[in-house]
Amino acid sequence: MSTPQFGAGLWNFASYVDRYATDGYAEPVSTLEQIRLAGEVGDLSYVDLNFPFSHGATIDDVKEALDKAGLKAIGVTPDIYLRQFSRGAFTNPDPAIRAEALELLHQAADAVRQLGAKYVKVWPGQDGWDYPFQVNHHDIWQLAKDGMRELASAHPDLKFVIEYKPREPRVKMLWDSAARSILGIKEIGLDNIGVLLDFGHALYGGESPADAAQMLIDHGLLWGMDVNDNLRGWDDDLMVGSVHITEVFEFFYTLRINGWEGVWQLDQFPFREDTVETARTSIRFLKAINRALDELDYEALKDAQARQDAIGAQRIVQDVLLSCMRKEA
Amino acid sequence: MSTPQFGAGLWNFASYVDRYATDGYAEPVSTLEQIRLAGEVGDLSYVDLNFPFSHGATIDDVKEALDKAGLKAIGVTPDIYLRQFSRGAFTNPDPAIRAEALELLHQAADAVRQLGAKYVKVWPGQDGWDYPFQVNHHDIWQLAKDGMRELASAHPDLKFVIEYKPREPRVKMLWDSAARSILGIKEIGLDNIGVLLDFGHALYGGESPADAAQMLIDHGLLWGMDVNDNLRGWDDDLMVGSVHITEVFEFFYTLRINGWEGVWQLDQFPFREDTVETARTSIRFLKAINRALDELDYEALKDAQARQDAIGAQRIVQDVLLSCMRKEA
Amino acid sequence: MSTPQFGAGLWNFASYVDRYATDGYAEPVSTLEQIRLAGEVGDLSYVDLNFPFSHGATIDDVKEALDKAGLKAIGVTPDIYLRQFSRGAFTNPDPAIRAEALELLHQAADAVRQLGAKYVKVWPGQDGWDYPFQVNHHDIWQLAKDGMRELASAHPDLKFVIEYKPREPRVKMLWDSAARSILGIKEIGLDNIGVLLDFGHALYGGESPADAAQMLIDHGLLWGMDVNDNLRGWDDDLMVGSVHITEVFEFFYTLRINGWEGVWQLDQFPFREDTVETARTSIRFLKAINRALDELDYEALKDAQARQDAIGAQRIVQDVLLSCMRKEA
Amino acid sequence: MSTPQFGAGLWNFASYVDRYATDGYAEPVSTLEQIRLAGEVGDLSYVDLNFPFSHGATIDDVKEALDKAGLKAIGVTPDIYLRQFSRGAFTNPDPAIRAEALELLHQAADAVRQLGAKYVKVWPGQDGWDYPFQVNHHDIWQLAKDGMRELASAHPDLKFVIEYKPREPRVKMLWDSAARSILGIKEIGLDNIGVLLDFGHALYGGESPADAAQMLIDHGLLWGMDVNDNLRGWDDDLMVGSVHITEVFEFFYTLRINGWEGVWQLDQFPFREDTVETARTSIRFLKAINRALDELDYEALKDAQARQDAIGAQRIVQDVLLSCMRKEA
Repeated sequence: MSTPQFGAGLWNFASYVDRYATDGYAEPVSTLEQIRLAGEVGDLSYVDLNFPFSHGATIDDVKEALDKAGLKAIGVTPDIYLRQFSRGAFTNPDPAIRAEALELLHQAADAVRQLGAKYVKVWPGQDGWDYPFQVNHHDIWQLAKDGMRELASAHPDLKFVIEYKPREPRVKMLWDSAARSILGIKEIGLDNIGVLLDFGHALYGGESPADAAQMLIDHGLLWGMDVNDNLRGWDDDLMVGSVHITEVFEFFYTLRINGWEGVWQLDQFPFREDTVETARTSIRFLKAINRALDELDYEALKDAQARQDAIGAQRIVQDVLLSCMRKEA
Repeated sequence: MSTPQFGAGLWNFASYVDRYATDGYAEPVSTLEQIRLAGEVGDLSYVDLNFPFSHGATIDDVKEALDKAGLKAIGVTPDIYLRQFSRGAFTNPDPAIRAEALELLHQAADAVRQLGAKYVKVWPGQDGWDYPFQVNHHDIWQLAKDGMRELASAHPDLKFVIEYKPREPRVKMLWDSAARSILGIKEIGLDNIGVLLDFGHALYGGESPADAAQMLIDHGLLWGMDVNDNLRGWDDDLMVGSVHITEVFEFFYTLRINGWEGVWQLDQFPFREDTVETARTSIRFLKAINRALDELDYEALKDAQARQDAIGAQRIVQDVLLSCMRKEA
Repeated sequence: MSTPQFGAGLWNFASYVDRYATDGYAEPVSTLEQIRLAGEVGDLSYVDLNFPFSHGATIDDVKEALDKAGLKAIGVTPDIYLRQFSRGAFTNPDPAIRAEALELLHQAADAVRQLGAKYVKVWPGQDGWDYPFQVNHHDIWQLAKDGMRELASAHPDLKFVIEYKPREPRVKMLWDSAARSILGIKEIGLDNIGVLLDFGHALYGGESPADAAQMLIDHGLLWGMDVNDNLRGWDDDLMVGSVHITEVFEFFYTLRINGWEGVWQLDQFPFREDTVETARTSIRFLKAINRALDELDYEALKDAQARQDAIGAQRIVQDVLLSCMRKEA
Repeated sequence: MSTPQFGAGLWNFASYVDRYATDGYAEPVSTLEQIRLAGEVGDLSYVDLNFPFSHGATIDDVKEALDKAGLKAIGVTPDIYLRQFSRGAFTNPDPAIRAEALELLHQAADAVRQLGAKYVKVWPGQDGWDYPFQVNHHDIWQLAKDGMRELASAHPDLKFVIEYKPREPRVKMLWDSAARSILGIKEIGLDNIGVLLDFGHALYGGESPADAAQMLIDHGLLWGMDVNDNLRGWDDDLMVGSVHITEVFEFFYTLRINGWEGVWQLDQFPFREDTVETARTSIRFLKAINRALDELDYEALKDAQARQDAIGAQRIVQDVLLSCMRKEA
């Protein structure tokens, strides 16, 4: 019956650029201004912060802005995907660049400590390849794991979460699925590395997000998550609930039956929409989903699933899902 | 406020086979038995019948079975995709096979007359190619159009609807999208050829089904439709509403604002599920969608769309969609 | 036996930015410098120029740079996808922005005249939608066609080519396929609008590029083309021939048997590679493809295609394709 | 320099049925006749046999037919995907059906012993789900692993290979990728379970087949493989080399640099083509690929890959790939 705590990547409140609108979809928004906008949403408790902060903002500036906005830091996401690292961070062919990536990650680890956040979020978006034959597949995966091991073993007091993604900006990324992430983390062999599951990444990677979440939970590795939506072909980062209502409900259902108690985070890129209103609309939807979870007939659904009864399960689910936004009497 | 009329392809009540379960997912079901099962659903008014009928059933047998089941024939779908036509019906490289396909189609036209149905449904599933360089693209498209012209011009009293589909069973099919179907029909130049839009085909072909429907309506060619669902990668023919709730709602919204008054048909392949219960569950969902259409704030949505306001439109839509299954007080 | 003329979009020699590497994959490259780099490739005869030119370059500056580089302008591509037009150019909900887009397009038309180029290339990348229910599908398609009509009818002395694409940067674009482009152009009803087919757009849009080319040729509308490659899921703009060797060969085969005599253009985005070497490697491949076309047994292939004989066609094609790069004795 | 040994699934020589051509694409072909046809290909050394054998053929009949055809059994593939198991084999909700699946698998194990084959191939095509909410994801994955453990532990003298696949015939299959297969096998904890990698499954599942092969080799689990081709959206089982020439070359390159010495097997479904000629055409292509491997400049490629130099690698690869079918002087 309780409402979950909501969070958002701070980039939800940024402006964006892509390879066509090279002048950006809006004027740049500073870290501190992004925090202020996040505070305006009204239902957010946590933000995940890109690092380094923009416009010279210091840790103290950020702390003050967070306090003022009524927000806490859940994680810090270092920018290991800018130009310097465009041919790879952990897996850059140049050892000097790999060292620079590690250095930035160490600084992000310090920021996590100073902000009292829960984890360093590692999103190695440039680690992968674009062309057949471009890389030796053994060597590059080894670099990816060795780098993570070096990073995480240097900070045994901290947690690190890897956010996997099938592709973009590389044509193919190394940490591309829940199964491969679990496997890589097991090979690394440290207990302070987990996974942040992005609903949309799972979806367009061909996973069932609910199944991916269950697998991660079963390995004790689901340490964070965020939601959004897409058309299953690309990481569109649309508002959650705008396309895959049933599957996002199944995802949260899976979290609930496993007693997963983390923050419900947003990862959306509202290129052309108002960033605060986008977040508000998504949270409005998530609250409705949460009401549906409260009203679900768990016993009946459990029975249907034991029979693998698709029809029965659909009816039980539709009963609560398609009434979760009703006006209360 | 009125309830639409519902229909279903008779194959919704068949048993199925695929390349793995070569012994079939269930025992074969005869045409007459399929009609009886369709009647059991309770909300169906129309069926689309595969032709020829199985087990030696005559037109009179079928008429009697339809009457008894309280059903009418909306269309007749000739089996131009069995072994004989596996390398093409209209576009078979062998002129003798093309003639046999035409002959079967003429018989189906007679069946339409005798059953008082609305159209011959032409689904040229084997007309296309599998490999690069297998066909001359000009010649095969010409065969496809010439065959349709010959067929439709022989029956000026009847209507013919082409059901387009991107692929399966051919790796690539010729009538693959709404736009190409309109274009091909214009090239044929007859006014008794239209289109049956399958929601799932549009979806996994990369179209917006609502947009495809609008384009067909604007050309006066949306003469039939059926719904189902899939994961956007294949024609899974799942129960409607099991995945793409918002987009199926947008599809029916588009039909309503255009005053489209046809039958809401099902095209589902319940390989492993009870066929009658599948249809009932889908119609239960469609009735909820229809209620949502009744309650939608059309003026507000129209205003949001005039501004191309994605956020506003989402909120308006979610308000009715996520309350359409509520228990009435 | 003759070598085709090669061309390239000038953006092949730019630097790039995306939503992650927001500081750009390299330093910005000016229009004039891009022209100089294009000239360095050594086999290029034509370039397609983004408009307006960067860094204050005038038409005369550009002409001089083209002369010096031994290049001619094949087309001019106005930037109707920057921030100003991020919610649409022809289809922007704001009539004032639509007027601004038209104004930029008129200026591009003037540039075509002054450069003696063949066409204005219209790539309405922001014309479409992102969310279900965001737009009225009739109205937005009407805006797209009306805008093109207004543009083209204002310049009866010029040609305009529309480059269709399924999506990106919008989640769904309006001019999305060969068939829809033909249909829209027919509805517009002017004879100075044609199509530029991008091989990669066709590929990841689910078309056979060869089939799309044939359809456009049959309607007299294939007025330009460019090539590249991708993994069929996104517009990766990789080097041509790096993935789909057979299908790019089928594409050029289709052009040759139809006597299509235009420029073979590149449209590649070498985010992380040397831009000149990328173009050289692609042209090296295209020359090999051209040799394969010279050596192909057209009669045998024609016979195989008349039988729709996939096996025979494959053998004939592999014989020349897999020997086109051999070192001559 | 040596020619590899070739093999094929015996189903390459069968006839096929799908949900449309329910009367089959050709007359049924018996196990013994399939063996005879495999022998006709001329370059095959091994076949993988469906089990049970059709038309009452005994092990002795099969042995005799294999001898006569000059073939050996590489594996046995039990039919755990027919009607009886259409709602799951290892994961069927009914324990009695799960027991029947195990019983059939035990019989297949005996057949492997009697035929002197290398492995039981387990392809659990019906183990998965079709709808969101249909299954409890933890429980069904547990059933899949428990069943494999029970099977493999009962036959410590034999090897078992799991052939993973993303989907079809289920909308989603459990053993869906290389990473998940490795993970599941590790969880099972037996050393007589490995993986058979199907090139096409990897490709349409979004993997790089070369990368998947490398990962399996690094875990000591690549115990078998087969090749074919598709358009990356479905398991089309086309002739190898008909679409993805470069990627199949990268796959075999990866095998060679790792010293992988197994059989090069075909897994094709020539629905509409001559089955023997299809195999011959594929082997002709594979021999050319093998020549290209012989002629490849490994040092230069290794250097390019160490730099992650996509351009250099492409040129080196094209030099041998696009000359591997040349007529020798």
